[in-house]
Amino acid sequence: MSEPHQGDRQLMVRVTSRAAGIPGPENFELVEATMPICPPGGVLVRVMLCAVDPAMRGWLSAEANYMTVPDGAVMRAHSVGEIISSNSEKWQVGTKVFGWFGWQRFAAVPESDVLWRIDTSIAPPESWLSIFGLNGLTAWVGFLHLARPVAAQTVLVTTAGGGVGSAVGQLAKAHGLRAVGIAGGAEKIRLAVARFGYDHAIDYRAEETPIATQIAAACPAGIDIFFDNTAGHLADSVFPYLNVGARIIQCGTAAVASWLPPPTGPRRERDMLVKRLTWQGFVAFDHAALFAKALQELQDLHKAGKLVAQDEVLDGLHHAPGAIQRLYRGENAGRLSIRP
Amino acid sequence: MSEPHQGDRQLMVRVTSRAAGIPGPENFELVEATMPICPPGGVLVRVMLCAVDPAMRGWLSAEANYMTVPDGAVMRAHSVGEIISSNSEKWQVGTKVFGWFGWQRFAAVPESDVLWRIDTSIAPPESWLSIFGLNGLTAWVGFLHLARPVAAQTVLVTTAGGGVGSAVGQLAKAHGLRAVGIAGGAEKIRLAVARFGYDHAIDYRAEETPIATQIAAACPAGIDIFFDNTAGHLADSVFPYLNVGARIIQCGTAAVASWLPPPTGPRRERDMLVKRLTWQGFVAFDHAALFAKALQELQDLHKAGKLVAQDEVLDGLHHAPGAIQRLYRGENAGRLSIRP
Repeated sequence: MSEPHQGDRQLMVRVTSRAAGIPGPENFELVEATMPICPPGGVLVRVMLCAVDPAMRGWLSAEANYMTVPDGAVMRAHSVGEIISSNSEKWQVGTKVFGWFGWQRFAAVPESDVLWRIDTSIAPPESWLSIFGLNGLTAWVGFLHLARPVAAQTVLVTTAGGGVGSAVGQLAKAHGLRAVGIAGGAEKIRLAVARFGYDHAIDYRAEETPIATQIAAACPAGIDIFFDNTAGHLADSVFPYLNVGARIIQCGTAAVASWLPPPTGPRRERDMLVKRLTWQGFVAFDHAALFAKALQELQDLHKAGKLVAQDEVLDGLHHAPGAIQRLYRGENAGRLSIRP
Repeated sequence: MSEPHQGDRQLMVRVTSRAAGIPGPENFELVEATMPICPPGGVLVRVMLCAVDPAMRGWLSAEANYMTVPDGAVMRAHSVGEIISSNSEKWQVGTKVFGWFGWQRFAAVPESDVLWRIDTSIAPPESWLSIFGLNGLTAWVGFLHLARPVAAQTVLVTTAGGGVGSAVGQLAKAHGLRAVGIAGGAEKIRLAVARFGYDHAIDYRAEETPIATQIAAACPAGIDIFFDNTAGHLADSVFPYLNVGARIIQCGTAAVASWLPPPTGPRRERDMLVKRLTWQGFVAFDHAALFAKALQELQDLHKAGKLVAQDEVLDGLHHAPGAIQRLYRGENAGRLSIRP
């Protein structure tokens, strides 16, 4: 199984241009290439699943970002795969691993792009891209490490049905908080409560009741933690319900299509001061030193039945160029990944 | 000296109405009243100096605030004075103290309004309202406790010539940071550098050079800590120069005259995320448990010649009703207080 096979074909998705909004098919090309060989000191990975992440929008943006994928490069992505050839002393052939393997079938990468071992006897490969991947780690770092959760306090989470939001809700319930989610569409709302354990979920697309009224009703004791993946008008509706001493965790800005130029909104300085708020932006990888501890906790919660994944796997790399837009349209039925 | 005298007259400034903008003479009345008597369990204080603070605007606002002074009440203010009569077991006659004594000549207050003892042999009474009062404590809490200063990093401070800003600059220099101040007018700029030790000070009223150009030139390595007392357009000019991981400390919002309704400005969610910023609002009294430690450090710095005050004392309570506006016009030549 591990060795490259005679009939293996390398397929990859390359970035062809910057995206003004959400990256789509016009920003990528699917190409066939020669089979890569194992690099000196590195490994050759047969990719099992490639992630599709909201953060990818930022990587293809012309604007400043914490990470950029240049035109011409294979699309950067977290993936899981099996090492089929190794020139590394650290990683052995046959090991299943998580790392930066990109949107491609075979990845010839330096040792440093292999991030950690995965164990598919604990959970299937897709879970290692969701609850035991960056989704779970992002939720753990942002919520448990940065937001200082306190039992019986209230956390409000946007994109509550998404990969990160669903994990935050479950972590909140496991730690005794009231968890209120906001998501788009009846199915996401249903999942948020029935599968991820949210005490209440608000559909921002339901137009009968103003979102502010729904938030007020769902958070009778106000909001102590606002875990925000959307920004924009939706976040504006939340600010009036923040309690004194509340923490805002900025994990994403999915609801704002373009930041060039930055859109305007209500100034926050007075709220920050009067309510003594703490507002923090973060990127999970800044806290990589905590990942081993976080992964252990996430696995323990999973074993105890307190953390479940919701994954959707698309078959074939031809789905990749349109997958980010699919994500932003909310059409995915769970954490989206692609079997290349 | 301590006892009330035959000829003592009680004078007080009472709040008569909410202020839409900066409170002024129309929101107060100066009245003569009967001499108060020492309350059961409390003390009678002869007030030596009454503070005039930017925060007072919020206390008289019709908008939500962390503190409100109701119509009809004596204007709330920090003051220093001497206890001239005591029914408290904690506080003895003759003790000089700092506390909530208001804008009046004599204050009959419960024991809990007396905050701490002052020592006028170390520094004159006005210093106990400035560097050893809430100005110094606010600077200490916001800068040393919350902003996580690191030697050689750059801090940018607005209202750098004011009571809090001048202390932040001095604390920054004492801890090895590059300190850049923004203030209004040539005299404040001169003081910021010559007296408070700022490495550079920017005059936001000087119209020859755009403020952004001046900030860029003064902060060649970017900004790691933004200690903001102003908010609004001035703060907007600072955001592009914040470094990854920068801390924003919201200490005041002096440049925005009204928050009802909240003015709009550039949305910050993307900056928060991409630069992994931490933005924190605070009120010094939330951290009162640290005050004893802070006061000791402030006194040590003063003794070492690293922390000086800049005070302006007005004679007579008739100055009080117009004093907050004087402060916001920037006409004060230092931390403003009133000898009642």
